[in-house]
Amino acid sequence: MQIDEIVKGVLSGSRRHLAKAITLIESRREEDFRKSLKLLDAIVPYSGNSIRIGITGTPGVGKSTFIESFGLYLIDKGYKVAVLAIDPSSQKTGGSILGDKTRMEELSRHEMAFIRPSASGKTLGGVARKTRESMIACEAAGYNAILVETVGVGQSEVAVADMVDVFTLLLLPNSGDELQGIKRGVMELSDIILVNKAEDDNLDKAKLAKSQIENALMMLSQRDDGWNVPVILTSGLKKFGFDDYFASLVEFFDLMRKNDFFQKKRQSQYLSWMWSMVDDYIKEKIHSDKHMKEIIDNCQEKIVLKEASPFSVAEILIDNLKNIFE
Amino acid sequence: MQIDEIVKGVLSGSRRHLAKAITLIESRREEDFRKSLKLLDAIVPYSGNSIRIGITGTPGVGKSTFIESFGLYLIDKGYKVAVLAIDPSSQKTGGSILGDKTRMEELSRHEMAFIRPSASGKTLGGVARKTRESMIACEAAGYNAILVETVGVGQSEVAVADMVDVFTLLLLPNSGDELQGIKRGVMELSDIILVNKAEDDNLDKAKLAKSQIENALMMLSQRDDGWNVPVILTSGLKKFGFDDYFASLVEFFDLMRKNDFFQKKRQSQYLSWMWSMVDDYIKEKIHSDKHMKEIIDNCQEKIVLKEASPFSVAEILIDNLKNIFE
Repeated sequence: MQIDEIVKGVLSGSRRHLAKAITLIESRREEDFRKSLKLLDAIVPYSGNSIRIGITGTPGVGKSTFIESFGLYLIDKGYKVAVLAIDPSSQKTGGSILGDKTRMEELSRHEMAFIRPSASGKTLGGVARKTRESMIACEAAGYNAILVETVGVGQSEVAVADMVDVFTLLLLPNSGDELQGIKRGVMELSDIILVNKAEDDNLDKAKLAKSQIENALMMLSQRDDGWNVPVILTSGLKKFGFDDYFASLVEFFDLMRKNDFFQKKRQSQYLSWMWSMVDDYIKEKIHSDKHMKEIIDNCQEKIVLKEASPFSVAEILIDNLKNIFE
Repeated sequence: MQIDEIVKGVLSGSRRHLAKAITLIESRREEDFRKSLKLLDAIVPYSGNSIRIGITGTPGVGKSTFIESFGLYLIDKGYKVAVLAIDPSSQKTGGSILGDKTRMEELSRHEMAFIRPSASGKTLGGVARKTRESMIACEAAGYNAILVETVGVGQSEVAVADMVDVFTLLLLPNSGDELQGIKRGVMELSDIILVNKAEDDNLDKAKLAKSQIENALMMLSQRDDGWNVPVILTSGLKKFGFDDYFASLVEFFDLMRKNDFFQKKRQSQYLSWMWSMVDDYIKEKIHSDKHMKEIIDNCQEKIVLKEASPFSVAEILIDNLKNIFE
């Protein structure tokens, strides 16, 4: 299929062409890579008219059920919903958190929804990049609510927070001595916190968890954007708390548009995407150069043996940089 | 003074030669830079026999008083104490958090102590690098307890956490609705938390603050190194809690040596110092190249106007990289 045809198809909202575009984006073939850049330049002016929502949470918190239910809720509100995923673990296993589509059976069959499992890639940076590009393609195809899911492993939360407008953390209705297991650093990335599975017998515990989380949040300093992180009780299974969550999203976007953080954040994200591609390229160049690899190994050994300081060793690397960009 | 002479002096523990070495490290002259690398290579085999303690806390928490008192406490225990500082704000004002030595009058006059105000520099990376190098010099001169202070502003806590063995956060005895103002991300960097100013009338509030902080910590997931972050009541003014803090430090270092995290952390820090110097150099090269600057400005404009995707724009930058490393 020609690029022009894919572009036209995507812009007309064709799911088949969108799938084709994402396959091109995810391809590892050099010629496909060049094509995908052409494609992205053509569709980027039509992207961006969406709310980009990141969702994370520890295994067992009920992310899939929540995303399926909330996705359908958004469709009821008139949104076209795309679900993407960042899953660094899928690189190793070949599996994927969204690979098992039956987990979101109803949503995946809905004509107003588009679900794409996590892209594979050698590095988190590579996977993240493909997800960003897929997000652009979904938006160009008219999807105006993008949910980016990630499992709570490694640095993927940071990668997701760097590609969305609002970051949601799902927690368990655990309180007191029960472990909540919030990964270090993830609390600070979160704009909205949901205590999920707050149904039935869990309700009281969930309320206690909510107040404990609110106490913990109160210790943190005021955010630059003036937003106060709300803690909301939800149940993906029983479909409650969605109105509260949606209201918080609306309030968040209202504030961010009013104080100009929405536009500023997106622009700085786009620039950081650009620079992270350049960084990745430089790193790849440095580490794949045979002569450089020898120097690095030798330098690292010297550092470990304390035969040279990290500072002078860095100078050796710097002196050799010109050879790899010839 | 010749490098050989400085090296000999530093290794003999001469304060005058140590001061000279650090002046060389902090110099911005190109020839001094080369000399300082030679110096560092010569002294690095004699460095590392110390405990490196990072200390941060919001303004008003009593850091200076605490560091002075605790520094003297360490000297009583037989340590030689060096106090360094990372203060990004000093870049603008020309001032420095440790510049006012009278704040640590007793410690600064002590023959077993060496206090050095924050280095100046154009970037946090530059200041951090000079502080790391000064740390190496202090160790080579026989200082075996290095306290690195930082004000709670910007990314300086991350820079300090990346150069020390153990990171201590000082908090106010505030509880309940009073603001604690913990900067986002700093809690996760902390190995030991002190509720300072826990003297006299503050004691009850400090105890309450301690239990609230402990609750917040309990929500976080278990650390890889198996350490449980303790919360300790201290008073820099009344010099109490030091035994508890010191016992925690000993326990921390014991665990880290036993599980091999101590050595692993230092090695990975050294390698990351090396790479951050290479990164800084590449960034500097890219941004100081006139032709590249034009391309960047043009590319960024295209991204903002959505005339091109960040992805294809990155390719343009990448294609031009070779020109700047010639």
